[in-house]
Amino acid sequence: MSTLTIHYPNGQHPHQSYHAQRDLPTPHQSIYAKRGMSLEDEINHSNQYYLSRHIAVIHKKPTPIQLVKVDYPKRSAAVIREAYFRRPSTTDYNGVYKGYYIDFDAKETRNKQSFPLKNFHPHQIHHMRECVKQGGICFAFIKFTELDLVYLLPASILFQYWDEQASGSRKSILLTDIQKAGFQIGYQLNPRLPYLKAVDQIIAAKNKGVYHVE
Amino acid sequence: MSTLTIHYPNGQHPHQSYHAQRDLPTPHQSIYAKRGMSLEDEINHSNQYYLSRHIAVIHKKPTPIQLVKVDYPKRSAAVIREAYFRRPSTTDYNGVYKGYYIDFDAKETRNKQSFPLKNFHPHQIHHMRECVKQGGICFAFIKFTELDLVYLLPASILFQYWDEQASGSRKSILLTDIQKAGFQIGYQLNPRLPYLKAVDQIIAAKNKGVYHVE
Repeated sequence: MSTLTIHYPNGQHPHQSYHAQRDLPTPHQSIYAKRGMSLEDEINHSNQYYLSRHIAVIHKKPTPIQLVKVDYPKRSAAVIREAYFRRPSTTDYNGVYKGYYIDFDAKETRNKQSFPLKNFHPHQIHHMRECVKQGGICFAFIKFTELDLVYLLPASILFQYWDEQASGSRKSILLTDIQKAGFQIGYQLNPRLPYLKAVDQIIAAKNKGVYHVE
Repeated sequence: MSTLTIHYPNGQHPHQSYHAQRDLPTPHQSIYAKRGMSLEDEINHSNQYYLSRHIAVIHKKPTPIQLVKVDYPKRSAAVIREAYFRRPSTTDYNGVYKGYYIDFDAKETRNKQSFPLKNFHPHQIHHMRECVKQGGICFAFIKFTELDLVYLLPASILFQYWDEQASGSRKSILLTDIQKAGFQIGYQLNPRLPYLKAVDQIIAAKNKGVYHVE
């Protein structure tokens, strides 16, 4: 487990209370900034917490690699000497929670007004659509890094903006729209991003038929 | 999709009908042998079939790599120059089918009498236990390569033998026991390994409470 020593009150977002003085680093902020924790790190830490508490089993998938040259030295481990990164054919995270298949991707933007849809690849959207058809729960984590705000956006909403974009609408989702349709995930100590609370709400809505499964 | 031209009658196992002459290659066998299709290939082809028919979304996870040195040449793709294979912390395959989280690993043995449990790493068993606790459906594919027989063994059965081994019992599962407790997956043209039929039976048994979820 992480041994972060940033003591935020549970569920409170670290920056919201001193938003006006954002340029004046507090001790908390500076520790945080030094760690340079990415959204991926934050999610991995949260998943580790959930796993250790038997709450959910959700992992990041390894990055796919195209191997070209591998050496097999005697008496030591195989060494990859030439390889290339491949584009993943799925999203980065999946797992199981309360019997539900969970599948999501995580994206960061430095924009402050909107999230550019080009952060998603068409195959990721396609993959999430297929998973939703199978009854999976899919969503996107979106972090506005300059604002230090993290949202969980249900896939159904993402698909809507994605399709509108294809028919000539705007190529980004306004932060204000994400705030309306998504769930803000406020930072905590442990788990850093308590996102399963939002997933509980998606499950409840799904079971009421609020989110369409196809 | 695979364009394999091996025309077995649906569901019939290619080798069973001429078991006594196994050393005399038939045209079917020799084509098959030339392809050298591993269990992994067979499962990947089957998953591709299921995906293309919108039946299930199940993927093999990439092999995790520890990067040591990556070059970023100008105007071309990043090149991994030194990296090592890491041991995966989960099983190799997961996905979603009919709303169920599916999670499994695939193992081959050249043995003809039994499957050695040392083919599994403790962390894989641990991972499957955690997934089962969350309501996931977990199992192992076991291929007896010399016999060309493939079985799907529910995780609950695997756990039982695993735990018995820990308390001094035999360190392998007899083929005859696998035949009793598992599902034989007979080869087909498409999908090569129609394993979701067996998963349907596991789901039915799970819903009747036959397999324990913890």
